[in-house]
Amino acid sequence: MQENPVVYLVGAGPGDPELLTIKALRILQNADVIVYDRLVSEEILDMVPPGTARIDVGKQPCSHPVPQGEINALLVRLAEDGKRRVVRLKGGDPFTFGRGGEEALVLARHGIDVEVIPGVTAASGCAAALGIPLTHRGLATGVRYVTGHCREDMDLNLDWNGLADPDTTLVVYMGKANIGRIVSEILACGIEPSTPVAAIVRGTTDRQRHLFSTLSHIAAAVRAAEFDGPVLFIIGSVVSLASAYQEEGEETDAAQALQQAGLA
Amino acid sequence: MQENPVVYLVGAGPGDPELLTIKALRILQNADVIVYDRLVSEEILDMVPPGTARIDVGKQPCSHPVPQGEINALLVRLAEDGKRRVVRLKGGDPFTFGRGGEEALVLARHGIDVEVIPGVTAASGCAAALGIPLTHRGLATGVRYVTGHCREDMDLNLDWNGLADPDTTLVVYMGKANIGRIVSEILACGIEPSTPVAAIVRGTTDRQRHLFSTLSHIAAAVRAAEFDGPVLFIIGSVVSLASAYQEEGEETDAAQALQQAGLA
Repeated sequence: MQENPVVYLVGAGPGDPELLTIKALRILQNADVIVYDRLVSEEILDMVPPGTARIDVGKQPCSHPVPQGEINALLVRLAEDGKRRVVRLKGGDPFTFGRGGEEALVLARHGIDVEVIPGVTAASGCAAALGIPLTHRGLATGVRYVTGHCREDMDLNLDWNGLADPDTTLVVYMGKANIGRIVSEILACGIEPSTPVAAIVRGTTDRQRHLFSTLSHIAAAVRAAEFDGPVLFIIGSVVSLASAYQEEGEETDAAQALQQAGLA
Repeated sequence: MQENPVVYLVGAGPGDPELLTIKALRILQNADVIVYDRLVSEEILDMVPPGTARIDVGKQPCSHPVPQGEINALLVRLAEDGKRRVVRLKGGDPFTFGRGGEEALVLARHGIDVEVIPGVTAASGCAAALGIPLTHRGLATGVRYVTGHCREDMDLNLDWNGLADPDTTLVVYMGKANIGRIVSEILACGIEPSTPVAAIVRGTTDRQRHLFSTLSHIAAAVRAAEFDGPVLFIIGSVVSLASAYQEEGEETDAAQALQQAGLA
């Protein structure tokens, strides 16, 4: 009996190879071919067995990424050509800004079995690395993930009023290019200019860089830092609880307010 | 030289023991004591070495959970009493509705080292298990996590208008008791009653149960299903892409609309 091909959409987590799940590691080690892009860290690619075929869809010779439609077609072709265990390896979680849904839909239309292996999101990884709780009693009742990236032919059109909720931590993925616009829109909706912000690149890896600022100053601070790679922003009063932040000065206002309210 | 004690706030992931991270497993296997609650699945507790001390803070004899203040004090006491590797094991991710921030803050105030190991969130795990992308081009530009649970002495007071954004997938943790209230509030803010909803309990484990419904019918459907355990809800048009959902009928409207728009 011939085994049916399966395409595994695998979340590689935020960057630290130890933040792969046990399941992701098992599937990587048994793959026939691995299709990956620039959001997967080098440390994680080092965990792929040396004999396994790899296809980099992060860069073409002209240095543009491979269009999504071509990646979808490649996954279908690999499965139909008889590769039984195709792994599509993605940074973070495949169903959170990973375009895994588009790949799953195309594969399902071709009758190809798909299995999705969730991963630790970049947001969870970076929050843990900086000591920032994404939710915290008295400071943030929830968390919201948005992307600051949009198609070149489209305007970045988010529900700005909803994003400016001071009780919700806002995480912006890939926000470097548009952070100035995002800040001015949510400031116009009434969020405090002194709201603390963390910016982080390659979080959880040895090459992590990060900085802390406020909404008023974050765009300039990130420009000055010349971060190399996709930047993740965490915006909200929880940022003031960051252990790294507290090391730089005395106890923050937010931590003091929580203590006074009997919440810490 | 005596090693300083460390308290590890470890995310156990959504339930499937293979969705532990490699790092979480390593730390579990080297722990002196493990403090856990009812959100950690039995399958995961089976991975703790048999000789390791365990403390269950999920239930007291009278079947109430141990208050958070007592858990905080217990962690401090274990570290100060000379346990060098204390693991606080939490379902999902410690900094997403895990109250890990409160524990980290108290430990830091006592000068105790804390390390946070992020985990796969229940939202990512359940989304993968049901084949629901949390974000999807043309359907959801972002995702928002809220909790449907609140302190007994407080009203559930969320930014309802912001929650009713049709372009954002809404994930409600622990929403069983308040789902009727949540639905009526967001319907009043103008979200479509036909918006699809998934409800899932013990997602990613062998004992997973789930159902699909719409905003109008979800409260009654969940009551009728008599789910045993914390229920996670995923609300939004992405739910119509669920592979499990599609098996029950023909291609959904949302998938057809995406195809017509050239997005799938």
